[in-house]
Amino acid sequence: MEIIKAGDEVLLYLDHRRTYLVRVEEGRVFHTHKGFLNLGELIGKPIGSYIESSLGVKFYALKPLIRDRILKAARRTQVLYPKDIGYLLVRLGIGPGCRVAEAGTGSGALTCALANAVRPDGRVYSYDVRPELQRVAAINIERAGLKPYVELRVGDVTVGIDEEELDAVVLDMATPWLAVPVAHRALAGGGVFASFSPTIEQVMKTVHALRERPFVEVETVEIIMRRINVEENRTRPETLMIGHSGYITTARKVLD
Amino acid sequence: MEIIKAGDEVLLYLDHRRTYLVRVEEGRVFHTHKGFLNLGELIGKPIGSYIESSLGVKFYALKPLIRDRILKAARRTQVLYPKDIGYLLVRLGIGPGCRVAEAGTGSGALTCALANAVRPDGRVYSYDVRPELQRVAAINIERAGLKPYVELRVGDVTVGIDEEELDAVVLDMATPWLAVPVAHRALAGGGVFASFSPTIEQVMKTVHALRERPFVEVETVEIIMRRINVEENRTRPETLMIGHSGYITTARKVLD
Amino acid sequence: MEIIKAGDEVLLYLDHRRTYLVRVEEGRVFHTHKGFLNLGELIGKPIGSYIESSLGVKFYALKPLIRDRILKAARRTQVLYPKDIGYLLVRLGIGPGCRVAEAGTGSGALTCALANAVRPDGRVYSYDVRPELQRVAAINIERAGLKPYVELRVGDVTVGIDEEELDAVVLDMATPWLAVPVAHRALAGGGVFASFSPTIEQVMKTVHALRERPFVEVETVEIIMRRINVEENRTRPETLMIGHSGYITTARKVLD
Amino acid sequence: MEIIKAGDEVLLYLDHRRTYLVRVEEGRVFHTHKGFLNLGELIGKPIGSYIESSLGVKFYALKPLIRDRILKAARRTQVLYPKDIGYLLVRLGIGPGCRVAEAGTGSGALTCALANAVRPDGRVYSYDVRPELQRVAAINIERAGLKPYVELRVGDVTVGIDEEELDAVVLDMATPWLAVPVAHRALAGGGVFASFSPTIEQVMKTVHALRERPFVEVETVEIIMRRINVEENRTRPETLMIGHSGYITTARKVLD
Repeated sequence: MEIIKAGDEVLLYLDHRRTYLVRVEEGRVFHTHKGFLNLGELIGKPIGSYIESSLGVKFYALKPLIRDRILKAARRTQVLYPKDIGYLLVRLGIGPGCRVAEAGTGSGALTCALANAVRPDGRVYSYDVRPELQRVAAINIERAGLKPYVELRVGDVTVGIDEEELDAVVLDMATPWLAVPVAHRALAGGGVFASFSPTIEQVMKTVHALRERPFVEVETVEIIMRRINVEENRTRPETLMIGHSGYITTARKVLD
Repeated sequence: MEIIKAGDEVLLYLDHRRTYLVRVEEGRVFHTHKGFLNLGELIGKPIGSYIESSLGVKFYALKPLIRDRILKAARRTQVLYPKDIGYLLVRLGIGPGCRVAEAGTGSGALTCALANAVRPDGRVYSYDVRPELQRVAAINIERAGLKPYVELRVGDVTVGIDEEELDAVVLDMATPWLAVPVAHRALAGGGVFASFSPTIEQVMKTVHALRERPFVEVETVEIIMRRINVEENRTRPETLMIGHSGYITTARKVLD
Repeated sequence: MEIIKAGDEVLLYLDHRRTYLVRVEEGRVFHTHKGFLNLGELIGKPIGSYIESSLGVKFYALKPLIRDRILKAARRTQVLYPKDIGYLLVRLGIGPGCRVAEAGTGSGALTCALANAVRPDGRVYSYDVRPELQRVAAINIERAGLKPYVELRVGDVTVGIDEEELDAVVLDMATPWLAVPVAHRALAGGGVFASFSPTIEQVMKTVHALRERPFVEVETVEIIMRRINVEENRTRPETLMIGHSGYITTARKVLD
Repeated sequence: MEIIKAGDEVLLYLDHRRTYLVRVEEGRVFHTHKGFLNLGELIGKPIGSYIESSLGVKFYALKPLIRDRILKAARRTQVLYPKDIGYLLVRLGIGPGCRVAEAGTGSGALTCALANAVRPDGRVYSYDVRPELQRVAAINIERAGLKPYVELRVGDVTVGIDEEELDAVVLDMATPWLAVPVAHRALAGGGVFASFSPTIEQVMKTVHALRERPFVEVETVEIIMRRINVEENRTRPETLMIGHSGYITTARKVLD
């Protein structure tokens, strides 16, 4: 049983739409529209327990999962969703020990998912041309406890990637096709290239660039998630849904 | 650079539709409709290299990823696809060190994906009532090099799960709702329940069972994958697609 | 060339999101946030022409199509979309001369589409238990010029339909399964039954009721529309879409 | 009650997957893998009745709807499905009395749907550059009883359309963008342009051509149909589905 201690981050769950990522400290007060909470009351309780607000409303304390951090980050920059990240992880075929390069770092959401997958002995090399964005990402990565597995680099992957013999290269950037030659060089034989792009023109250019080099299994897909509302006599897919986030293109480097 | 040695399993890639999982041995011959291959020629070459068949056709030797094993297994039992497994992994929020129970073992495809995610210090406890099926799964798990991280158990999870304080419980079985009480007991506070079911009646019963116990974030989704054929002046989604594999229901245990 | 005359209804088009259904009258002024319009200026101009507002913004005068009326009505009651109505019309197989019963009348959107399809010598018998709703529908139907082809009836189709030997019966109501026996009696041999329902429980009960009677070709589908934003270098499906409106169940009566 | 007479075409229904379009004649025998049928037995019976084959299997006689003809035609040329035709009809906003040009004629499936919608006093002008294909279409149109409402023209709509002041122009051809200028000239003010294209490149070129001329409401959509298998405790969307047939682009001409 995991016990909450001072300094821990927990996800406070109020209802389906409202969760809050907070740090537990003795004497710390957290204000909500449902009253305030004394976060210190959580210390010593097991994960999954609740505390009540000043208005008597229950808030459950959950351990923040990577997906919670992805969604918190996604709300700001609106790019990769869990549905996309899950498919990417499986296509990349990565696991503990793998070495992966990523560009751009963005808010660090995908970085966290990659780092979580390759720890404890793998590494994520995350490139971004915007140092100010990486500073935000650095905080997210540290809060997720994944700092030891990530190396942030300010740099342009269309110019170069410092690493070699990588297991995977993942691009979430405006012009992925320009980074294809560099990605090919940085990958090990059989290593996986992946790119996430919202528009079909980006996909066309990237696929064209991949086909000009020794890559096999070039594939583009779109992952669509439908939420189902399950209520007695009212079960149905949700009325409004995310119709499109982006296309995922993957390929595997071969030695020709 | 990873060099192929005798005894290694490699994925031979011919084209988008045809790949073969083979064991490399000195003197071993592999017959295809494109001529035969001397697998021994691969020994000493780096992963990603090709050999030519007796008819001069190139076959690339790739390192088998978990997704390759999933697809090889899926072709037989037709259940969980990479799109579903990816989303499951993200929802479960698991990573190295996590302890997960799964039922049923089936062909071992999901077992491999889970084991790959929790290694080196986590464990997958995989239950199935059919010992003969688990024997097949055991072979798949061993071939994937994941045996140290999996404990196969012949047993019925609607009756009991031996473990406690689990990070996650995943059900891919005909009557998941009957296993909800046992899953709740086996989970740690904040632990994640997940169930994969092809029919909406299974979903309704499972969601109903979850709502009767202290679970939050009960959610049902469907993950749909569309493949895009990217060809100059002929770019379009694939004509025929998998319209439905199953629904994924997840929830998090709280302590009430 | 069709010339606009006093008393005509036109659809004023400002942009993709803003259109206005107005009656043209000499001296009538229409106020918008882009300035006011003298609708009388349209008299004598051909359909498709524009007039300028007091702020110099162009408004094009289009002939209102049934789909424009459907969308105007749909914005209020949020049910059947053009995608659903189009499929219904094709499944019903109706055309000029056909006799169709419908329940409920609702806002009259589907009634207009049906009446437009069966005119000049067919009829739509539209039932609703709520006389106050039918009064609104009557106005919509009259404005669309379709009054001669519609007979509105206040009544409960689960109790009875006055007509016999109908070509089609269409249900858009909360409990379609209760109307299946009556619909069967009212249909001619080979006549088509159709039902539109948002929830899967409604579908299950309706299909069950259909299978208990001499119906063939019982089929349930869902029609999903994705809008594609086509912009140079930014072409992609829309981010937010309608994920679900309802299921369409159809069947054909046979004589057993 | 409609009685079957000699010379009538009927749709023989065996089961969900097997229907046969046959002409009823005294003494005519129709052979199936379920035994043979004496079609003459149908004469004098009402539509919806059944006859039994020599092996005692029931075949129901239904009136062929336009959708039956569409599907019979679609099986051969694999283009427009009922889902697409239904949406097209609603977007075109056509009804009895409308005048519509179409290119190409193809198998005549869309031609029949259009002719059915505009009869008795409207007309469909159907162009195709391939006279041999139009001969097949002519037979389909005549069998559907729609010959009086269709004028087949051998000709290239990128060069010219003979008619003017049309209510709608519908293109189902390889290079719709080349026909946009001609379509604009042939349409009345407010008239609707529609194009059906399988690839995104066709859509991009067509939308670009439309934006260069006085058109409003330029819109591209994709209509996706999911079939739901409704069986007690086994209700679920179909495993395999049509993932893509084509994109539908529509616009309305204005006078600028």
